[in-house]
Amino acid sequence: MDQQHRLYLDDISVGQRFTTGSYDLDEAQIVAYAKQFDPQPFHTDAQAAKASLFKGLAGSGWHTAAITMRLLVESGIPLAGGMIGIEASLRWPRPTRPGDTLTVHGEVIEVAPSQSRPDRGWVTIRAETRNQNDEVVQIFTAKLMVPRWQGA
Amino acid sequence: MDQQHRLYLDDISVGQRFTTGSYDLDEAQIVAYAKQFDPQPFHTDAQAAKASLFKGLAGSGWHTAAITMRLLVESGIPLAGGMIGIEASLRWPRPTRPGDTLTVHGEVIEVAPSQSRPDRGWVTIRAETRNQNDEVVQIFTAKLMVPRWQGA
Repeated sequence: MDQQHRLYLDDISVGQRFTTGSYDLDEAQIVAYAKQFDPQPFHTDAQAAKASLFKGLAGSGWHTAAITMRLLVESGIPLAGGMIGIEASLRWPRPTRPGDTLTVHGEVIEVAPSQSRPDRGWVTIRAETRNQNDEVVQIFTAKLMVPRWQGA
Repeated sequence: MDQQHRLYLDDISVGQRFTTGSYDLDEAQIVAYAKQFDPQPFHTDAQAAKASLFKGLAGSGWHTAAITMRLLVESGIPLAGGMIGIEASLRWPRPTRPGDTLTVHGEVIEVAPSQSRPDRGWVTIRAETRNQNDEVVQIFTAKLMVPRWQGA
C-alpha cells in the first residue's frame, strides 16, 4: 500500500471498524502447520482426531492466530510503521476445520499517546476471526505501537 | 511420551516448574515464517530491517509463539489429553534474532476443577521464552483444559 495512505496515531479513532479479505484453509495446511509447530494428533492426523475431544481434525489455535495476522497485515487497518504488537490476548471459542474460509472483523477500542515518547502511541484493536458460517473461531485483542506524524 | 506418564488434573499443583528443550532459530526460518504469516519488511528482508524500528531482522512474535508451543508440546508439562489452550495472553518485551536459541521456562499458576464438567478442569501456566543470553523474548500465560482421572 502507498505510504501516503497509511495512518498515523492521530488519524485513528476509537470505534473505527475494518474487515479484512478472506483466507481459505484446507487439511494440508492444517497438518503442515501442526507438524512444524503444534504436533498433536488432533491437529496432524484426521483419523486419530476422530477419537479426540475435537471429534475430527482441528486447526491449531496458533495457526488461526498466524492466519489472522496475515489477514491484518494484508488488508487490516493500514498503520504507518506496520503492525507492531506489544502484547496480545487470544481466546479460541471453537476450532478451525478443513474447508473453512476465515475473515477478520476488527474494531479500534483504545487510542493513547505514549507518556514518555512524543513520536508514538498505542492503538488497541479487538478482532474476531470468523468462519464462513459467521462463527467466531478466535477473539483477539492486541496493543500496537503506532507512530505519530512528525511532519513532511 | 508413554500415556502412563502423563498428568491428570489432580496430579498438578500450583508452583510446579518445568523447563523445555531448546530451539535454534536462523534467518531462513524467520524469513520463511514471516513470508507466510507476517509479511512485513522488518521480518522478511534483513537489509530493509536495518532502517526499521528493530534495527535489523527480527522474528515475528507469532513465530516466537509457535516455537514456544512446539517446545511445550515436545518437552513441557506432559498433560493427559495434550496441550489444549482455551485462552492465552502474550507479551513480547524484545524480538527474536537470527542465531537465537530459545528455551521455555514454565510454572503452574492456577489449578481449578470445572464447575460444570466433573471430567475436566483448568490449569493456567505462565511461560517465559528466553534466548541464549537469558533475555526474555516472550511472556505467555495460557489456560489449558486438562482431564481428570476417570479410573482404569
